[in-house]
Amino acid sequence: MARPLTLPTAWKRLSSTSSSGTLVYHSKPLPPKAHLHGPLSDKLFPKGYVVTGVHCGIKKTTALDLAVILSTSDRPTSAAASFTRNAFKAAPVLVSQEVLDRNEGRARGLVVNSGCANAVTGKKGLEDAWAMVKSTGELLTPPPPNSQPSTLVMSTGVIGQTLPIGKITSAIEGLKGKPLGSGFEDWEKAAKAFMTTDTFPKLRARTFKIRDKEYAIAGMDKGAGMIHPDMGPPTSSPSSTSGLHATLLGCIITDAAVSPTSLQTALDYAIDRSFNSISVDGDMSTNDTVVVLANGAAQPEENEIDKETDWEAYEIFRDELTSFAQELAQLVVWDGEGATKFVTVTVEGAATFEDAHKIASRVSTSALLKTALYGEDANWGRVLAAAGSIQGLTKPLEPTLVNVLFVPEDGSSALPVLVGGEPENVDEVRAKEILSEGKFEIKIQLGIGEESAKYWTCDFSYEYVRINGDYRS
Amino acid sequence: MARPLTLPTAWKRLSSTSSSGTLVYHSKPLPPKAHLHGPLSDKLFPKGYVVTGVHCGIKKTTALDLAVILSTSDRPTSAAASFTRNAFKAAPVLVSQEVLDRNEGRARGLVVNSGCANAVTGKKGLEDAWAMVKSTGELLTPPPPNSQPSTLVMSTGVIGQTLPIGKITSAIEGLKGKPLGSGFEDWEKAAKAFMTTDTFPKLRARTFKIRDKEYAIAGMDKGAGMIHPDMGPPTSSPSSTSGLHATLLGCIITDAAVSPTSLQTALDYAIDRSFNSISVDGDMSTNDTVVVLANGAAQPEENEIDKETDWEAYEIFRDELTSFAQELAQLVVWDGEGATKFVTVTVEGAATFEDAHKIASRVSTSALLKTALYGEDANWGRVLAAAGSIQGLTKPLEPTLVNVLFVPEDGSSALPVLVGGEPENVDEVRAKEILSEGKFEIKIQLGIGEESAKYWTCDFSYEYVRINGDYRS
Repeated sequence: MARPLTLPTAWKRLSSTSSSGTLVYHSKPLPPKAHLHGPLSDKLFPKGYVVTGVHCGIKKTTALDLAVILSTSDRPTSAAASFTRNAFKAAPVLVSQEVLDRNEGRARGLVVNSGCANAVTGKKGLEDAWAMVKSTGELLTPPPPNSQPSTLVMSTGVIGQTLPIGKITSAIEGLKGKPLGSGFEDWEKAAKAFMTTDTFPKLRARTFKIRDKEYAIAGMDKGAGMIHPDMGPPTSSPSSTSGLHATLLGCIITDAAVSPTSLQTALDYAIDRSFNSISVDGDMSTNDTVVVLANGAAQPEENEIDKETDWEAYEIFRDELTSFAQELAQLVVWDGEGATKFVTVTVEGAATFEDAHKIASRVSTSALLKTALYGEDANWGRVLAAAGSIQGLTKPLEPTLVNVLFVPEDGSSALPVLVGGEPENVDEVRAKEILSEGKFEIKIQLGIGEESAKYWTCDFSYEYVRINGDYRS
Repeated sequence: MARPLTLPTAWKRLSSTSSSGTLVYHSKPLPPKAHLHGPLSDKLFPKGYVVTGVHCGIKKTTALDLAVILSTSDRPTSAAASFTRNAFKAAPVLVSQEVLDRNEGRARGLVVNSGCANAVTGKKGLEDAWAMVKSTGELLTPPPPNSQPSTLVMSTGVIGQTLPIGKITSAIEGLKGKPLGSGFEDWEKAAKAFMTTDTFPKLRARTFKIRDKEYAIAGMDKGAGMIHPDMGPPTSSPSSTSGLHATLLGCIITDAAVSPTSLQTALDYAIDRSFNSISVDGDMSTNDTVVVLANGAAQPEENEIDKETDWEAYEIFRDELTSFAQELAQLVVWDGEGATKFVTVTVEGAATFEDAHKIASRVSTSALLKTALYGEDANWGRVLAAAGSIQGLTKPLEPTLVNVLFVPEDGSSALPVLVGGEPENVDEVRAKEILSEGKFEIKIQLGIGEESAKYWTCDFSYEYVRINGDYRS
């Protein structure tokens, strides 16, 4: 099993003096590599896949910028995906949706580039995305029947620029006949090729059991800014959750066998509780995509897991996928642009999951709260004002039933700041102590129902303003 | 007529060096007083009102913190109000709603305190708000019949603390028998008593005509942070506009005669196009309130304006109220915490006003866009990503029809950055020139309908983080 995500080394404070006063600010060092992605045992990675990451020349440096993941299983590989609900969907989003539709939930490969989002690129953008799908398809052995496209594509980076497609397809062709790998170092290369403003590659892997049979699941994602995904299945209805919402790209790869429909249903469930429950800055990207592949290579003799025929096995798989997706999603918040705090916002006692999720989302995006958290000020009035601003809940809030608590990470007792709608006489020293730990939970108990939701967010710092004030320069 | 709102003196740049690099930041000086509220001729202020602002002791300094406005007209004074839709409505909001309900849209006075919001203060908070209403009512001449409460109350400041009610009622009683005033200096005192983190008092006044008869309208407001109001009439249905959304307090006082129902209808229309169309930080307050009083003192012989009997006169009044409310609302954005830019976001060609308003609201609150504007980077990709993130529009966006332009304040030609969904080859030098002017418009043309909406917002700066990172300390 992979080790749990823990707090990186202590945040340090830096200060600088300006002519308008002293700016004291908190800054984090790069978390130690070991905390975030390994090194992980090769045994944790799913069977029947080969992967790599290369430098094809999109990025001006020599950094890796192209990842390829291929299923080598003899069995059909199921594929499911969740795409941004943004109206300005990037070309790779539209193309991957079409591949999944045409293949009825089967795909055997994934190609990902960083450095250029291929978004708002018109007809040329679509041609380029299809060219990536086609080139990658030619790496598959055996080749797909009827030359049906059966690989998915994702892109991330600057919006409004076209891909250097010649460099990309040359690099993919260059992989022909070369054995890709399946060990940690190969996966790490792929994860590095996902990165844009990320400060570390995001790779996790673990094994799990369903009725004594062992399976592996691995995943990579990227994202640091423009993070507030709201994703849905290929033919998406309007969001059931909140309406707001960077580029997030993720892929989750397992060697379990799961039917296409059940894989998509399990992913939808997992996404609402993981990637659709994180926020760095409240901004939704045109490219957000999470893809899952399931090739059945772990237990070649087993039938595909299907919710219609074996709910119990399905439920174990779905919950494992959800837990794994949460782990991956949290890595993005951890690396949030300028973030010095990792904050869990829990809303309990709501009438519905959607109500709880909407409130948690709004609290997680409050600029006033996020700047207070940066300043290590337990400003519960801002929590309340944000929670109360949500309109159209299934069941309206009852102010006199609401509790708000700050919960420390170390297991010591929680600090109630509001009980039954009335402010507590808060020990500000204790409050500051909890906030200065860098990782804590804000718990909001509504007292009007049985449902709950969690959101993961970060604070809002000088560094966020600096990064995004001159992103393109 | 009052002079138009113009750009304050040039923004200046300050820079400071930290150990992580150079933070270059833009800072504004306090805009010259003359640009923002006068001095204004006494003739611009409505007849039949007396006002003042005093220091009663809520603020620790000697700053004014209590304003009183009373109608002295012999005619019935109509009153309308728009209140925050936040679930955690402050005591003064609940009490003012009840006063209006009981009096069927009539009220002759308004009392406002700053320094303490009287929000999340339980039963004691309600008692205190009623005590303010009662004390102020005793200043009315003649006294209200049946001692029916007929004054409204508003509070702003820190959440979760109770009012020093003894100090407040003593100060109000101290006004008995003392003549309040009706000239510019009296109004200015009242406007100063509204202020919290505001850097200047916000007072405007003007005259207008309906069929050759002249009327006056004056108003004050306050707000600098926690600004993204979403207000509705006393018995409010869920917002028709966006679901997101500091304390904003405003009052608009006129000597026209308007029936209570028509005054409320005109205010609802005006609010959606003014105070519900501004954002500093996207956070909605528990206290947002705008009150309008209309006492008929200008033309004592005229009937009340009523939309049922004289639509034309009503429409002239409604549009004047809307234009005046926009002027007042813009003062708040102008004084936005840490703001160095004043930005108009216009969405044109939408299917409905609500669609246009939702998109304008989302673009106006995008942290990524607001930090880019601070950095003077015309990052249109962020405009597009924000616009595209809105779900549930009456008519979905058609990406290939969308134009985005940056429009300078000085009347020189606009800079198209996206035309028909395709990126233009943008002259970045020209773009930076427009943004560095400090006041400009971002125009988004959807091309799918005839409706439009405007929003006024500001940028997101280091100073915003500083102010809100240590608000309570």
